[in-house]
Amino acid sequence: MPAHQTTISEVGEHAVIAAIREVAPSARNGDDAAVLSMTTPNARYVVTTDMLVAGRHFRLDWSSPEEIGAKAAVQNFADVEAMGARPTALLLGLAAPGDTPLETVVGIARGLHAQCGTCAAEIVGGDVVGGEALTVSVTAIGELGGPAKPLTLDRARPGDTVIAAGVIGASAAGLALLERFGAPAAVPAEFAGLVRAHLVPDFAYGRGPVARAAGAGSLTDNSDGLLVDLGQIAAASGVAIDVDGAAVAPDAALRRAGDAVGADPWDWVLTGGEDHTLLGTINGEPPTGFRAIGRVVRGDGQVRVDGAEPWLRGGWVSF
Amino acid sequence: MPAHQTTISEVGEHAVIAAIREVAPSARNGDDAAVLSMTTPNARYVVTTDMLVAGRHFRLDWSSPEEIGAKAAVQNFADVEAMGARPTALLLGLAAPGDTPLETVVGIARGLHAQCGTCAAEIVGGDVVGGEALTVSVTAIGELGGPAKPLTLDRARPGDTVIAAGVIGASAAGLALLERFGAPAAVPAEFAGLVRAHLVPDFAYGRGPVARAAGAGSLTDNSDGLLVDLGQIAAASGVAIDVDGAAVAPDAALRRAGDAVGADPWDWVLTGGEDHTLLGTINGEPPTGFRAIGRVVRGDGQVRVDGAEPWLRGGWVSF
Repeated sequence: MPAHQTTISEVGEHAVIAAIREVAPSARNGDDAAVLSMTTPNARYVVTTDMLVAGRHFRLDWSSPEEIGAKAAVQNFADVEAMGARPTALLLGLAAPGDTPLETVVGIARGLHAQCGTCAAEIVGGDVVGGEALTVSVTAIGELGGPAKPLTLDRARPGDTVIAAGVIGASAAGLALLERFGAPAAVPAEFAGLVRAHLVPDFAYGRGPVARAAGAGSLTDNSDGLLVDLGQIAAASGVAIDVDGAAVAPDAALRRAGDAVGADPWDWVLTGGEDHTLLGTINGEPPTGFRAIGRVVRGDGQVRVDGAEPWLRGGWVSF
Repeated sequence: MPAHQTTISEVGEHAVIAAIREVAPSARNGDDAAVLSMTTPNARYVVTTDMLVAGRHFRLDWSSPEEIGAKAAVQNFADVEAMGARPTALLLGLAAPGDTPLETVVGIARGLHAQCGTCAAEIVGGDVVGGEALTVSVTAIGELGGPAKPLTLDRARPGDTVIAAGVIGASAAGLALLERFGAPAAVPAEFAGLVRAHLVPDFAYGRGPVARAAGAGSLTDNSDGLLVDLGQIAAASGVAIDVDGAAVAPDAALRRAGDAVGADPWDWVLTGGEDHTLLGTINGEPPTGFRAIGRVVRGDGQVRVDGAEPWLRGGWVSF
C-alpha cells in the first residue's frame, strides 16, 4: 500500500499557492497583477490570469456564454486597473468537452470581445483544446505608462483616505437571490440590478489609471470581500484601516434583498466579493469617480468598522 | 425536443478558432505569439498561451510533474523565441481535483521554474482552482527589444535559405516508443534520448533573438510537424519551400527506433511535431546554431522534399 500523499484539498488553496511560490520565488508575484519592466525606460506592463471552471466559477444555466466571457474579462481587467494600468490585451485558453455547442464557445469569446471594446483592448491569442469540463483561462495584460509607481498593496500610509469606486455587496446579494430563487428569470424583477451585478459586474474602465495619475498609493479590487481585500492592503502596508460604516451601509435595494432571502445585507457588504469595485488609499481627496469610505491609521493589518473589530459570522472568519 | 446545436467536435479545432476570431478579430492573432507594442518607442513584447489537460496532452504515468512543467514551459517559450523574442515571464493557471497530491502541483511549478532558470525568466503569477481534470494553463511572455521586425510567418522570400536549430522527428519517435513499450522504464535504454526528447524537448534558449539579430525573415517552431509548420510559413508568405531530404534524413537512432516499433522514421521527420525546434528562413547563411535544410522558391504555399510533393501516408494528410 503506497504511503499517503498530502492532497491539495487537505492543505487548501493558500498553502498550495505558498508551496508553489516557495519553489518558484518571484518578487513580482503576490499583487493583483505582476509588473514587468522592459529594458526600455518607463516601459512597464502588468499581467494577471484566472482559471474558471464550469459548475464551480460559473453556471451555464444562470449565465449566457456572453455573460461568462464578459465577467471573465471584468475580473481580469479589474486586476490590471488595480495596478493603475490600462487594459490592452486578453489571451483566451479554453478546454471543453467535444459535445460543447460551438455557440457556447463563440458566445464566451463574444462576451470577452464586447468587454474589450469598452476599454480599447483586444483578444490577441489563445488555445482551444479538448477537456472533461468547460474550463476558461483568461490572461489579461495592461500598460503602465510613465514613471509613476504601480498601485501596489504595500503603499497605504497612516492619514490616507480609503477610497472606493463602485458598488459593494451587490454581487453577493445577486448570488444569494439566484441561490434562493433558482434562476435569473425566477428572481423578482425589482432585484434585476443585483442579479446583473453578480453575472456581469459593472466596471468603469479608466479609474485605475486616474487613481494613479491623482497620486493614489495602494489599489486593489473587491474580489474576495471588503474586509479581506482591505485587509491585504493593511497587512502589506503595515497599517490598519478604519472603514466608515455610514459610507458602505447597505442601500435600500440590498436591505430589501436581505429581507427577501432572510440574510443580513451587512454580510454582503463586508464579506461579499466579486464586485470588482476598485478599493484603495490616497493622501488627500478621492480622485474623480471615487468616494471616501474610511481612513488609514497606525496598526498592523487590522480592518475595523467605525473603530470596532468587525463581528464574526458564519460565512467568514479571520483574514 | 430542442433543435440540434452544432458541437465543437463536429466542426473541429480549426473551425472553432476561426469562429472565435470572427467574433473577436485581431491583427495580432495568428502567429506563434502575439506582438504587443507600447506607447514607448521600440518597447514591444510577445505573449502566447497553451492549455494542457491530463490524459490528453500529458500522462502522469509517463512524465514526472517536473517533466510536465518543463515541457509546458518549453512549448510556450519556443513560441516566444519563434518571434525572435527573449522569454521573460510565465503565468501558471492550474485547475485540479481536490485529491491531487500537493507534490504533483508543486512538481509542475518546479519544472516550470527550472526551465525559467535556463533562460532568465520567472513565474510572475497564476491561479489555482478546483476542477474535474488536472488542467495546466501556461502563458509565456517575452521581450522584443530594438527596432528590428518580429520574425512573423509571412516574411519568407524566394531565394532565402530554410534553417533549423535542433532535432526533427525525435519527439514523435519517443512517443511511438512509449506507446509501443508502455512506459519510459520499459523502453530499451538505447532509446532513452528519444523518450527524453518527447517528455522534455531540449530547447537552446537565445537562438530566436540570434536569428532576429542575424536578419532572419520568418521563424516558427516544429510543434505540429515539419511539413505543417513550414507550410504555414509558405502559405503566409506566398512562397513554396523545397526541403533538402539529405539535411533532414532520419539519423541512426531514428532508423533503429523505426525498426523497433515497425514504423517508417521518415513519417516522424516529416509529420512528427513537438520537437519545438526553431524553423525559419534567412536571406544568406544560417545564423549561429542553425543549419540549412532547404530553399525558399516561388510558389503558393507548397512544401516539397527534393523538389517532389511529399508522399501521403496514414498519419497526415494535406495541409
